[in-house]
Amino acid sequence: MANKLPQKIVIVGGVAGGMSAATRARRLCETASITVLEKGPYVSYANCGIPYALGGVIDDDKSLLLNTPESFKSRFNIDVHVNSEVVAIDRIAKNVTVQKSDVREQVQHAYDKLILAQGAASFRLPIPGANLPCVFTLQTLDELKSIKEFIREHKSQRAVVIGGGFIGLEAAENLKHLGLEISIVEYAPHVLATIDAEMAEPIHAELRRQNVQLLLNAKVERIETTNYEGSVNVCTASGAKVPADIVLMAVGVRARSSLAGEAGLKLGKAGVSVNKYMQTSDPDIYAVGDMVETKHRIIGSPALLALAGPANRQGRLAADHIYGKKIAYRGNVGTSICKVFDMSIGSTGLSVEALRALGRSPEWVTVHTPNHASYYPGANPITLRVVFDPETGLLLGAQGLGKKHVDKRIDVLSTAIQAEMTICDLEHLELAYAPPYGSAKDPVNMAGFVGSNLLRGDVRIAHPEELYGMDQAKIEIVDVRSPSEFAAGHLVGAVNMPIDSLRESALALGKSKQVLVYCFVGYRGYLGYRILAQLGFDALNLDGGFKSVVEGGHTGLLASIK
Amino acid sequence: MANKLPQKIVIVGGVAGGMSAATRARRLCETASITVLEKGPYVSYANCGIPYALGGVIDDDKSLLLNTPESFKSRFNIDVHVNSEVVAIDRIAKNVTVQKSDVREQVQHAYDKLILAQGAASFRLPIPGANLPCVFTLQTLDELKSIKEFIREHKSQRAVVIGGGFIGLEAAENLKHLGLEISIVEYAPHVLATIDAEMAEPIHAELRRQNVQLLLNAKVERIETTNYEGSVNVCTASGAKVPADIVLMAVGVRARSSLAGEAGLKLGKAGVSVNKYMQTSDPDIYAVGDMVETKHRIIGSPALLALAGPANRQGRLAADHIYGKKIAYRGNVGTSICKVFDMSIGSTGLSVEALRALGRSPEWVTVHTPNHASYYPGANPITLRVVFDPETGLLLGAQGLGKKHVDKRIDVLSTAIQAEMTICDLEHLELAYAPPYGSAKDPVNMAGFVGSNLLRGDVRIAHPEELYGMDQAKIEIVDVRSPSEFAAGHLVGAVNMPIDSLRESALALGKSKQVLVYCFVGYRGYLGYRILAQLGFDALNLDGGFKSVVEGGHTGLLASIK
Repeated sequence: MANKLPQKIVIVGGVAGGMSAATRARRLCETASITVLEKGPYVSYANCGIPYALGGVIDDDKSLLLNTPESFKSRFNIDVHVNSEVVAIDRIAKNVTVQKSDVREQVQHAYDKLILAQGAASFRLPIPGANLPCVFTLQTLDELKSIKEFIREHKSQRAVVIGGGFIGLEAAENLKHLGLEISIVEYAPHVLATIDAEMAEPIHAELRRQNVQLLLNAKVERIETTNYEGSVNVCTASGAKVPADIVLMAVGVRARSSLAGEAGLKLGKAGVSVNKYMQTSDPDIYAVGDMVETKHRIIGSPALLALAGPANRQGRLAADHIYGKKIAYRGNVGTSICKVFDMSIGSTGLSVEALRALGRSPEWVTVHTPNHASYYPGANPITLRVVFDPETGLLLGAQGLGKKHVDKRIDVLSTAIQAEMTICDLEHLELAYAPPYGSAKDPVNMAGFVGSNLLRGDVRIAHPEELYGMDQAKIEIVDVRSPSEFAAGHLVGAVNMPIDSLRESALALGKSKQVLVYCFVGYRGYLGYRILAQLGFDALNLDGGFKSVVEGGHTGLLASIK
Repeated sequence: MANKLPQKIVIVGGVAGGMSAATRARRLCETASITVLEKGPYVSYANCGIPYALGGVIDDDKSLLLNTPESFKSRFNIDVHVNSEVVAIDRIAKNVTVQKSDVREQVQHAYDKLILAQGAASFRLPIPGANLPCVFTLQTLDELKSIKEFIREHKSQRAVVIGGGFIGLEAAENLKHLGLEISIVEYAPHVLATIDAEMAEPIHAELRRQNVQLLLNAKVERIETTNYEGSVNVCTASGAKVPADIVLMAVGVRARSSLAGEAGLKLGKAGVSVNKYMQTSDPDIYAVGDMVETKHRIIGSPALLALAGPANRQGRLAADHIYGKKIAYRGNVGTSICKVFDMSIGSTGLSVEALRALGRSPEWVTVHTPNHASYYPGANPITLRVVFDPETGLLLGAQGLGKKHVDKRIDVLSTAIQAEMTICDLEHLELAYAPPYGSAKDPVNMAGFVGSNLLRGDVRIAHPEELYGMDQAKIEIVDVRSPSEFAAGHLVGAVNMPIDSLRESALALGKSKQVLVYCFVGYRGYLGYRILAQLGFDALNLDGGFKSVVEGGHTGLLASIK
């Protein structure tokens, strides 16, 4: 039987996807020769921990080295070759050509099945100064060491991080821990491309609260040296010059697909094409992890995704398929989370912005609810945005932010999306409750209540963005909060009619105008909506309330307070 | 149109389910007269917070009073009558008879639709001494006040808590915070009836670590006074006498179904029978919350469930149905969580013990994995047991324990159970990962990997309980950990064959015996299983490894170490 199984397995790349494939292959077949060829000096290291090792949160870089070539040999009988770059694939002869970094000659490794797990490379902006000695990317342990050494040697005091994605934000926080002054220069209008602008605003606020300078809508055109030795300026298209002693470029990654491309394997728009068993266009060659395009379950078409969890699973499934187990990869929903100083921001599925870019018109609801029972010490608000199909209610995405327990809600919502639940299903979800952990009505349930009300016609809502175009002659804006809340800040043009007397005060409102009602987070506004709608008014409730306006950065909607 | 809607809504009981029903009814119908009749002096209070108010974790009892009759009147135009006990229902005349505590006369309230939300009453063991002045139950704000006053007045130093369920454990922890010496007397072999014995053992250990005395398998027969004024002995059937200055009886609750029963409404085994719209056998009378039996989604038949989340949802759905919205209650999976000093223990679905009591033979897997990336500071192990159908893989239950982030995994698994996922689906779940929050392979994924391997025949496992009956002549027990781990403690009869040399050392094993392989948590054991199985051995891996044996309290399986 053993002879029928593939006996020569070669894997290119020895981090998440590659090592998952290698060890799974060994578990499924004791007799195979399994060889891992890794370009760099390390295998199986925890690259997700690198930003934290930079800041000393993880105090020993060695703790990121999960395994060594020796440990793979003794435990798995896997031959790991480091400093070994695969430079060519001969699909006819079924071998790869390897260039070792310390040897002139190239050698061939024959394969029955080849698994490519080369990952994605940090992208460097093609701008003048991008290769100055003080400009770094942060992906490998060697880069981590270089940056730490650079900062120590040059006593760097000012860091500019180009790019406000996950790595950029994690690195900014950790460089701050080292005592550097930090600026983040972001090309887009907001950090974190996977979330909506309004959800990114509180992250901007947190960064500023932590004395991180934030430049948005800022296209870096060049990095120029200055008269001060070692100091550079990061120069933007709008003329800003941000001084820096060290620059970290965190502008994303590009799939390492050139080897596959040169071998004639089919490529997609951004990475190697694979089927659901992770096979490339050559059935004897698999590809996994950050270098491949896999089906995005919300979009429906292939997309690139650089996340560790999916990479590990794909490696496992490639080995499964090689050894006769046909377990299909189900695609991604793009679940992620990022710590930004004292805040957590997570998302799953697609944002409103991403869906609109695909030509879709999603609906969404926003709730602001405490992470656990408000009367239990340490309660903190979570802002949760749940995005769904306005016709069917099918969940399309969710975003959450707050100081604590955001990850739990994102994981529940990610599971719900993968189970193809609707917004109405969230109303029914039974979640673990005790005062230290949650509420009898969890934030996820609350989003379900609001969304179900909306789908069933029990409420109509307006989002803050819709208020900009509203004609004040046609709409009455009613603030149902208390007079003291109203006095502390309210929407332009709003009148104050506290909820507890709205039944009477509403009689003074004319019915010729639509009435937009709002409170602080949306609940009293909803009560107000129900009163007004039953009195015959054409009413709307403001989604997420005044808090969403303020937190979401809609300063243009706020009345100036004397 | 308004005339067609029910206009007289009467609700009996003003806490979770009752007030959810009342406020939802108001939101759906502005014109109805809505009356809440509450037996006690308070409405809408946070009874789940009461144990924490006892210990001063919540420092102001008033923070548990979420609303008042006055606030319900002004905000919702709901008439709330406190100290008003409903003593009879006249289903023909459609009214209820109310006895106010401070008035001799009874009054009638007419209803179009009646909602019973009377909850469940703390049960007092029918034993001698159960009504001594120092014996309390803890469910209401009045009881909370009485206990606090009693402890202050009598300077109580020793508390005995009878019953190790949620309330008993929360109360024990909080009484400990007050400085009392605590004993817990539990009738069953372990605390927390919803979890399995092996998962309760670490909770026992935590209680003992916190200097809580724990008596298990202890039936309380009487509480007797002693020669010391105010001091009593809690006496068990086995003759133990536990001295106490104050006794808290936390032995569960009984549905308050007598009013419904006297009115001729259909009762189930333990509570009022309702349909999926929360209607009793009289279509004009609904019942919700702790007093009703609702479908348990795993068992399939009705069961009692005293949880706040379901009570709130049921109240909402009863009001929905009254106002023409047919939204069915989906039943419960029984998701709960409890803080026990520094540990969290949560569960969803059914335990192995509960399934066996129903005549079923479930399979389960146990994983011990860190709450987040092990290299990120503060990592702590979580023990996760996932229970499933051995044929279909359908998830039937899950239990988790650990110091941090247990609630997240229970909520994900509860969502997965409600989505009718299988153990194999857990392998594919995409969850939010960054080092402060989780791992690329989350504990939930790990359980999925192990369970999938089992279902697909890639591994066979034995549970610690199965080791007791094993014939040492027929089985070889192989410990694949390092020699130093082995030396620190191992299973009776085990030989040490470290995993890294197992390929060679296994050659010395005879194939006449079955081989049980184990490591610390199960992973190296699984690697060992794969090596041995492929070498032709009849192998088994120990589920959860040596840690499950130790943590689960299987001291009889441990070799004595010199």
